[in-house]
Amino acid sequence: MAPIPFPAWPDVAPALIEVAAARAPADTVIRGGKWVNVHSREVLDGYDIAIARGRIACVVPDASDRIGPDTQVIEAQGRYMIPGLCDAHMHIESGMLTPAEFARAVIPHGTTSMFTDPHEIANVLGLEGVRMMHDEALLQPVNIFTQMPSCAPSAPGLETTGYEITADDVAQAMTWPGIIGLGEMMNFPGVAHADPKMLAEIAATQRAGKTVGGHYASPDLGPDFAAYVAGGPADDHEGTKEADAIARVRQGMRSMMRLGSAWYDVESQITAVTEKGLDPRNFILCTDDCHSGTLINDGHMNRVVRHAIACGCDPLIALQMATINTATHFGLERDIGSLTPGRRADVILTSDLTDLPIELVIARGQIVAENGEIRVDCPHYNWPDTARQTVHLGHDLTNKDFEITAPEGANSVRANVIGVVENQAPTKALEMDLDVSDGLVGPQGDVAQIALVERHKGTGEVTNAFVSGFGYTGKMAMASTVAHDSHHMIVVGTDRDQMALAANRLAEVGGGVTLYVDGAEQALVELPIAGLMSDSPARDVAAKAQALGEAMVATGCSLNNAYMQHSLLALVVIPELRISDKGLIDVRSFEKIDLFVPQD
Amino acid sequence: MAPIPFPAWPDVAPALIEVAAARAPADTVIRGGKWVNVHSREVLDGYDIAIARGRIACVVPDASDRIGPDTQVIEAQGRYMIPGLCDAHMHIESGMLTPAEFARAVIPHGTTSMFTDPHEIANVLGLEGVRMMHDEALLQPVNIFTQMPSCAPSAPGLETTGYEITADDVAQAMTWPGIIGLGEMMNFPGVAHADPKMLAEIAATQRAGKTVGGHYASPDLGPDFAAYVAGGPADDHEGTKEADAIARVRQGMRSMMRLGSAWYDVESQITAVTEKGLDPRNFILCTDDCHSGTLINDGHMNRVVRHAIACGCDPLIALQMATINTATHFGLERDIGSLTPGRRADVILTSDLTDLPIELVIARGQIVAENGEIRVDCPHYNWPDTARQTVHLGHDLTNKDFEITAPEGANSVRANVIGVVENQAPTKALEMDLDVSDGLVGPQGDVAQIALVERHKGTGEVTNAFVSGFGYTGKMAMASTVAHDSHHMIVVGTDRDQMALAANRLAEVGGGVTLYVDGAEQALVELPIAGLMSDSPARDVAAKAQALGEAMVATGCSLNNAYMQHSLLALVVIPELRISDKGLIDVRSFEKIDLFVPQD
Repeated sequence: MAPIPFPAWPDVAPALIEVAAARAPADTVIRGGKWVNVHSREVLDGYDIAIARGRIACVVPDASDRIGPDTQVIEAQGRYMIPGLCDAHMHIESGMLTPAEFARAVIPHGTTSMFTDPHEIANVLGLEGVRMMHDEALLQPVNIFTQMPSCAPSAPGLETTGYEITADDVAQAMTWPGIIGLGEMMNFPGVAHADPKMLAEIAATQRAGKTVGGHYASPDLGPDFAAYVAGGPADDHEGTKEADAIARVRQGMRSMMRLGSAWYDVESQITAVTEKGLDPRNFILCTDDCHSGTLINDGHMNRVVRHAIACGCDPLIALQMATINTATHFGLERDIGSLTPGRRADVILTSDLTDLPIELVIARGQIVAENGEIRVDCPHYNWPDTARQTVHLGHDLTNKDFEITAPEGANSVRANVIGVVENQAPTKALEMDLDVSDGLVGPQGDVAQIALVERHKGTGEVTNAFVSGFGYTGKMAMASTVAHDSHHMIVVGTDRDQMALAANRLAEVGGGVTLYVDGAEQALVELPIAGLMSDSPARDVAAKAQALGEAMVATGCSLNNAYMQHSLLALVVIPELRISDKGLIDVRSFEKIDLFVPQD
Repeated sequence: MAPIPFPAWPDVAPALIEVAAARAPADTVIRGGKWVNVHSREVLDGYDIAIARGRIACVVPDASDRIGPDTQVIEAQGRYMIPGLCDAHMHIESGMLTPAEFARAVIPHGTTSMFTDPHEIANVLGLEGVRMMHDEALLQPVNIFTQMPSCAPSAPGLETTGYEITADDVAQAMTWPGIIGLGEMMNFPGVAHADPKMLAEIAATQRAGKTVGGHYASPDLGPDFAAYVAGGPADDHEGTKEADAIARVRQGMRSMMRLGSAWYDVESQITAVTEKGLDPRNFILCTDDCHSGTLINDGHMNRVVRHAIACGCDPLIALQMATINTATHFGLERDIGSLTPGRRADVILTSDLTDLPIELVIARGQIVAENGEIRVDCPHYNWPDTARQTVHLGHDLTNKDFEITAPEGANSVRANVIGVVENQAPTKALEMDLDVSDGLVGPQGDVAQIALVERHKGTGEVTNAFVSGFGYTGKMAMASTVAHDSHHMIVVGTDRDQMALAANRLAEVGGGVTLYVDGAEQALVELPIAGLMSDSPARDVAAKAQALGEAMVATGCSLNNAYMQHSLLALVVIPELRISDKGLIDVRSFEKIDLFVPQD
């Protein structure tokens, strides 16, 4: 299945010229709209857009003479014509959806271009997995550009991924038709210390003339930041404060401000434009991560633009931040991001520039959504077995696999326990005294067991530790093959039998999330593609995810966004304490530590 | 002589990182300046710039810890640090100087990047000549990017150039290290009518990911303009009115506003920004054509920026129009155009943002000019004989070559006469009654003879006609091998002996401009490179050009810019009447016409 990239401007220039010159009829004319011009930053009333071969041929006050008997005429009826919205940085896997189903969910919200970093699948399936995402992306009726993941593993030496991404992989990916640049360079200490592998990935991207995505997740704006910038990343979406955004733009990066399902970084940073008056051209909006529930209930880039406007941003500037600014950043300003000749005919009709109702969405000249309903097919890639069978446990797990043996002769132990903190990505490194029973240390009080189950190579290895803070009660276990970033399986439970049941269940269904109580499955979200994504519609996935959340509450866990906490417990780049296939990792010192604290 | 392009960011990233992180000393530190930040559009007081390997490593409030024993320290003393200025579209040949000598003339004015279209030499020497310009450009201590000329000949069928540029030439040039895009696509009727050759040149450029320069020299903003835009040109510098600039920007092109020696298109267009309030990011400043005298007496891009400010433009916005806007347009925003990490260290120190005195110029980290004096070598290319011997007359010309024979038996004739109009590029197509003497029609009254002398192939052909309006008196002739666009030789004279003397003289010196009166040479500007350029310093060329102008005045010609009028008389794309090697061309109908008007 070789994907065919959308024809380039020069492929269709003769047709565009004929229509623009009024010597040939357009395929489609949008008539009588308000032209939202993101180049001049104006709204111009009374314009028509003539489209041919999926691209804009001309935008003129009157395109009547470009209308032939076969021309599709769309009456704008005085509504605003705005460019299709661009999401400048995002992970499709966060929606637990394949690219096709993600596209189907966001097209009705007016998103027609996405810059996606398939970092999660890269950890599971390596370059081959990235290629599958890339290929499904190119099948879609909208523009999904792929950023080549840069950091798998995220924490070399501290975890074992399914595959590792190399600089050669990056160089190879740069030749693919849908690759737009390098995905977020998360190894910012590596760049700041001139790590040769990281610099080789950046160099391969720069030499290909493509854009290096950044990720500088530190409040330190001193020499480390300066060194990171000098390394070459061209943007950053990890800023959280106005000073972060300003620092990035001043240093010649673009500041990507995100509003995701759990990211709220627009309001705190957009004041750099709305209050400090900085040139807005280097500010860009993105989502980074959206759950399927957000897509179903709240929207996608339309939600971000609305929010920016609600934060006091001029609507035209907010739209620029989601259209032309993004296009320019990725070297695509003559391909997408504005309603001007030669560009892909990605057009939204909306009757209000503040509320931004997405009434009609046209992508590449074709009506793709109308009043919130998709009107087009989003073809599925033929995912091979290698992508559908990624949960390799080595053997059926039992109670025994989850046993934690106490030191010989101990009646109690002092254990290093991962402390979950509500609404925060960082955990706490706790020390807690735990009782020993029959030579084992088991779940007790609010302390549950956590297990990292190797699932990529079928080694059968299980790494056991303790976690506190979920509030689970009764005999339960929850398991997930979404386990950032290496995506083994994380099982949290108050009972080892339930833990074995949950883990085996995910092996059976090919991955996902499940919750067991007293031997019965309470909820299941199947994620058969790489154990990360479903190829079912977003609505179904969102419903199952919601049922899962309700089941977690019923099991005593009332933390906000508790599932996300669960899936991040192996993220060995965020402090303080995490679990990996190598053991318990202290992310303050980037060292493996023992489960039990040595006692005098 | 294989030119070595300046090292790219990834070539030197490790060195930049070490300096930025303060682990290694910088090569150069500029200390204590006001950072003119064209990304955020701010002036930030009290910053240092650390430079390594010719690129900026970091811009920080205090770079003391990046200063080592061998670090060159430049004290900004509170002055403004602005990015080196960029000329977005220009022809080096217009200065009658080689790239090296042009660079030497403009570096003290703060120009550190030029986007040059060697259109003139392309007509004389074809792709090989373009390569020579390109190669000398890459030898310079500043950034001279080459736009591949698109239109030689300018008027196919109406003139014979030395060489023709093909779409294959364009595709080949796109692989050269210093090629940045396609030079101005002047054949706008061709593009608007989907001429396959023009579209093939544009396509080759677009597919190479490079920028297509535009040239739409018509006030018509209707379907022809729409069709031209749909063809792909990304910019245009031919606008003269505010409406032109606005139309281009709205259609997704960049509006290049020029102030050249004879172009005054900034004041009339910049109101699109200063009064209409359009987003300034798509407006760019350029010179297009500067004579050596302008470079010596008035400046270069500093003159344009000053002028834009004098027209009411905010200084920071004017500077953006000559730095980052240009860089972004050509896909170079991470290489030049701002004072931020990774970019070439092209820095100007100035104590005033309005008057813009160019006090110190640093290019690629090296001091290249100080208080108006060049401080660096601008290496010459080893121009081969093919470039130095381009005036091929076939034989020594004599009086006879310039004879215009009257129709058999006529006592007088009605002739088509080229009418020169002061300060206008278009000429008038005049009909005048002329006397016949000895069977010949010679100069009489204000009617001089004009001859187009073939000089590329040595055919010995001379095309004779009449011109009116120069006001020459006595027995004189003026000859020039600068003869846009095909650059044969134009000789204008009141006496055929003088015409022969002048023409032969240019063959002797390898091209240039000469003026003869009564058998004695009054002035000579030698242009030995392709008959277009001198490799002498701009000051010498300007002095000779001035002497030439004074000699023209002494010979009775007091037209403003009369030499330019002379050199444009073969420009068979501008109405109404021109001369080419094919004869007299009526540029209203694009047809060859007879010298004599048929009479009843």
